[in-house]
Amino acid sequence: MSRLQQQIKLIKRPVGLPTNEDFEFIEAPIEEPSEGEVLVRTVYISVDPYLRGRMNDVKSYIPPFKLNSVITSGVIAQVVESKSPKFEKNDIVIGSLGWQHYSVAKESEIRKVDANIAPASAYLSVLGMTGLTAYFGLLDIGQPKEGETVVVSGAAGAVGSIVGQIAKIKGANVIGIAGSDEKVKYLIEELGFDAAINYKTENVKMALNKACPNGIDVYFENVGGEIADAVFPLLNKFARIPVCGAISAYNSESIDIGPRVQSYLIKTSSLMKGFTVGDYGSRFQEGTEVLAGWLQEGKLKYEETVTEGFDQTIDAFLDLFEGRNIGKAVVKVSEIE
Amino acid sequence: MSRLQQQIKLIKRPVGLPTNEDFEFIEAPIEEPSEGEVLVRTVYISVDPYLRGRMNDVKSYIPPFKLNSVITSGVIAQVVESKSPKFEKNDIVIGSLGWQHYSVAKESEIRKVDANIAPASAYLSVLGMTGLTAYFGLLDIGQPKEGETVVVSGAAGAVGSIVGQIAKIKGANVIGIAGSDEKVKYLIEELGFDAAINYKTENVKMALNKACPNGIDVYFENVGGEIADAVFPLLNKFARIPVCGAISAYNSESIDIGPRVQSYLIKTSSLMKGFTVGDYGSRFQEGTEVLAGWLQEGKLKYEETVTEGFDQTIDAFLDLFEGRNIGKAVVKVSEIE
Repeated sequence: MSRLQQQIKLIKRPVGLPTNEDFEFIEAPIEEPSEGEVLVRTVYISVDPYLRGRMNDVKSYIPPFKLNSVITSGVIAQVVESKSPKFEKNDIVIGSLGWQHYSVAKESEIRKVDANIAPASAYLSVLGMTGLTAYFGLLDIGQPKEGETVVVSGAAGAVGSIVGQIAKIKGANVIGIAGSDEKVKYLIEELGFDAAINYKTENVKMALNKACPNGIDVYFENVGGEIADAVFPLLNKFARIPVCGAISAYNSESIDIGPRVQSYLIKTSSLMKGFTVGDYGSRFQEGTEVLAGWLQEGKLKYEETVTEGFDQTIDAFLDLFEGRNIGKAVVKVSEIE
Repeated sequence: MSRLQQQIKLIKRPVGLPTNEDFEFIEAPIEEPSEGEVLVRTVYISVDPYLRGRMNDVKSYIPPFKLNSVITSGVIAQVVESKSPKFEKNDIVIGSLGWQHYSVAKESEIRKVDANIAPASAYLSVLGMTGLTAYFGLLDIGQPKEGETVVVSGAAGAVGSIVGQIAKIKGANVIGIAGSDEKVKYLIEELGFDAAINYKTENVKMALNKACPNGIDVYFENVGGEIADAVFPLLNKFARIPVCGAISAYNSESIDIGPRVQSYLIKTSSLMKGFTVGDYGSRFQEGTEVLAGWLQEGKLKYEETVTEGFDQTIDAFLDLFEGRNIGKAVVKVSEIE
């Protein structure tokens, strides 16, 4: 007789902002690992804006979630039972695993994390996908130079907060755009941003004009919509725009309409490039090492918004679209033993 | 007593589509060349869509025209009197010169063209700015590979017609978008495009879907607006979009609004880059040599729409926005002697 556990399945394609009715908590047996597999207990679940896109049934850079299947995302877990020579009981591992208490993973689907460098959850943020996203998007596409002006939207989020700090390491003048006075204060006082704008209370166009007297050389795009619209008229010649996210549009039920960008790009010979971290798969090792080095030197700080309890997973995910998180949003499901 | 000649000045900033009232034909004396200068007689005047932008009083990649000054553009001229050791009477030269019958140019402002390689007017098109624009935009930003699908808007224009032919030289599958059945026929039958779409009579989205069963790898943007909107949903992973022009917006009196592109760029990791030919100034020699080689090998054809008579210059310019030209639009002002 297998023990039972809880899982979260997507049961409806959300229309607009997802609701609790789009998901179902169900009970299912804990599977047994076969040869070459490992049974792990979920410790942290990563909740990320990009998961919203996977809930739609459209072609994108990763396939959509299947209806009535367990949702997957980045997960930190602890090995309970190993039938692989590569893992031992109590190893801390990371992988793209299901939203459930226990998972059986093939040995190729997970890798060990070194909890001596940073707490395990950091492998979901600064030393994981969001840190690497910031690292490659900013440095490979944005290429900030000393003294240039870098603007980051979604600046207090998991990616944006790392982007701004890396831009500071590279000697740029960094302006963050975020959605609360608390976040603005955090960006300036904790992370060393040169300025930050609360888009909910300030006129972004006027505030950017004031904060960027020399124009904008790099705009790291996490948000899209009217915040992006305010950036384009301020681009300098040969500006670069890494396009990482457009969270303002993820729940839109209509086509996202705004000023077309072609004329701005021509006038300034600017570059705009979409990317996902997977494009840099062959360089993850390099990125992780550099990020870990900065972290250990104290040049990089990271924040987490930790929601306690598996039953809060959906709420933690929905909070992303309310901008409730500072830094990386994770759900703590169990303790490391 | 100096002889008199006609000049064309910009006397009003056009609102929307320019009209004859924005320009004035005036009489002015023909100047005398000083030491190091040359008096030239205008042979061909280049009329180009980008000149519309210079008529607005806004910062761009080149300064706006001054009100009540003679308009300038690319001009082919013949030397009448030289006070420079670098030029002799009857030399054929090119430079950015005024819209007038005679100009005095400093020796540094003009250069000789070799009429043995191609007729002089070709230095305003395939061997000049528009050819180089096509060359660098397509090859440096678009980077078409054999077997890829390249879509060109404004395909029968001075730039687009060269872009499509270079893409064919590189082994791509080339689809042109243009505004008449005559142009569509010209693209397919004369220039060897694989397919062409008349955006005035066809549903561009459906026609593109049919013509691009493998998606779009390169979109060379000359037009913007709804034609561009139809391209974005068909972009392949790692698509490239050289943004050269957005003629559909040049005369717009309101902000040019359409679907925001961020999500399309993220889903496909696509690149969009504005440019102007001046960005490649250090490589003009290379570009001109390659283009001249293709021309002489018969791999590159070019067409001109020649309007006869200086008094027709404004009409020839305005015809660009009606899409009346095939290939390069030039005004023939005088004969080469």
